[in-house]
Amino acid sequence: MSQLITTLAQFPLHYLPLTMFFSAISALSFIHIAIASCAHGVEWVHPFSANVVPSTFSYGTTTGPLNWHNLNANNSLCGNGTNQSPILLNTTSSLAPSGSITLAVPPAKNVVFENLGTNVEVIMNGTLQAGNAAWNLAQFHFHTPSEHRVNFVHYESEMHFVFTAADGSAKITVLAFLIQIGPNTSYPFLEDIFSYLPSIPNAGQTTQVPTVDMGGFVSDANKMSYYQYTGSLTTPPCSEGVSWYVATTPIQLYVNTYRNVKNTIGTSNSRYTQNTLGQMNILQVAAKNL
Amino acid sequence: MSQLITTLAQFPLHYLPLTMFFSAISALSFIHIAIASCAHGVEWVHPFSANVVPSTFSYGTTTGPLNWHNLNANNSLCGNGTNQSPILLNTTSSLAPSGSITLAVPPAKNVVFENLGTNVEVIMNGTLQAGNAAWNLAQFHFHTPSEHRVNFVHYESEMHFVFTAADGSAKITVLAFLIQIGPNTSYPFLEDIFSYLPSIPNAGQTTQVPTVDMGGFVSDANKMSYYQYTGSLTTPPCSEGVSWYVATTPIQLYVNTYRNVKNTIGTSNSRYTQNTLGQMNILQVAAKNL
Repeated sequence: MSQLITTLAQFPLHYLPLTMFFSAISALSFIHIAIASCAHGVEWVHPFSANVVPSTFSYGTTTGPLNWHNLNANNSLCGNGTNQSPILLNTTSSLAPSGSITLAVPPAKNVVFENLGTNVEVIMNGTLQAGNAAWNLAQFHFHTPSEHRVNFVHYESEMHFVFTAADGSAKITVLAFLIQIGPNTSYPFLEDIFSYLPSIPNAGQTTQVPTVDMGGFVSDANKMSYYQYTGSLTTPPCSEGVSWYVATTPIQLYVNTYRNVKNTIGTSNSRYTQNTLGQMNILQVAAKNL
Repeated sequence: MSQLITTLAQFPLHYLPLTMFFSAISALSFIHIAIASCAHGVEWVHPFSANVVPSTFSYGTTTGPLNWHNLNANNSLCGNGTNQSPILLNTTSSLAPSGSITLAVPPAKNVVFENLGTNVEVIMNGTLQAGNAAWNLAQFHFHTPSEHRVNFVHYESEMHFVFTAADGSAKITVLAFLIQIGPNTSYPFLEDIFSYLPSIPNAGQTTQVPTVDMGGFVSDANKMSYYQYTGSLTTPPCSEGVSWYVATTPIQLYVNTYRNVKNTIGTSNSRYTQNTLGQMNILQVAAKNL
């Protein structure tokens, strides 16, 4: 999950409105372009570039997933929550009723693409209708390898579309797609976005993708079936009550593109598998007899 | 690591001689072929098939890596060892002196290939000279994704050649190769072996590969440089004092072959990253404030 959603989740009742977030990004952008214009003179064609605050947690050792609960008091659920994500999925896992998901993401221009150090993330508007509930897209981002596993086996990557509640409540829904890599197939919108990875090689950097049109993907996504469960953010603060929809059909990505994503993020960024929903947190199970 | 090495490591001073292991396999094989001959009549061309005992640990939840120390009293080092593998490697990690490794694996016939449920494993003879020490190859096997990470980033798989000491002591050395997948390159010996995956779809099954010749790979391996450190088995009982040599150059494998390996093993089988060598076990670090 992203820095944005981390911020949201740390303020579950009074979270930062998206408009404030975009204002902050825009302000940074403006400052940068103004400075750049001194050097280059043609600021209106200079690529968007600004900074975001990189994540303070990691996927390493003592600041990694096993110890997130000790990094910040707000992260306690990472160590004691009993409905944590990601989980093992299998053929007996609950499915959302057929046709209960409608995703809509209109084509967009100058789309913000960020390197958070623990992830690369795309800020884009869109909506999700899930049953009777309406959701607004905040961002989508990528994990390598996948966080969820199906029949115990991981995929090479996983894409998370993160939504906030349209009614202004603090709820979060994540629409997740397992990604299988191969030589022959990818979605054009992913290739378009990832062609800008060289513009954000380091944590904290952002750029803009001139045009993102994910119509073909959205059309496919609306025909898929989804595992459905209620879990948590997979990053600090590991807030629970997150409604997960995980597509049962993996999507495809070119091997070389995947490799660029992995190397730009600069770290594997998959949280370890959590205990069965409703059972004691696996870290508390593990804490016995140490 | 394998069931064989698990067995070895559980009896560090009086371990099961390899000859006993092969005798057990041969006996099972004979029984199976005798039975098969009743049904098929041509036992001498019937593929070798026998059973091995599948692993009792898993990569799932409460029997998974975070809780191995609670599965068996012999596994305590998994939870409290301070030189555990796998670790993060990077450009400052120690390298073995150039030319200090000489691997030799002669071509072999009727090579045993096993599905342990947590791994697929090849039983093959060979030797390793590492500095002044001589080692005998016991087996090699595969993890997905990789266990070691370089500059925080994993590879899609990792191959471990496991050696016992030629002097009969209980020491173990592992020669490890990170595996990167792609459309265009693989080693013939890996493709030969993995073409027999359909013969061992389930945990506990074994088959024979008629001929394995890894001369090209061995020649390449002897030219590579290696990270070197002393760590542990990456599976129960997580015994320490294991001498690791991890090739700095990843080897290549076809995407489709990798996918077959992953699906035949039937589980992701990579242990989470351990703490810095010599530091408190990461599970003991994590046990605070739960």
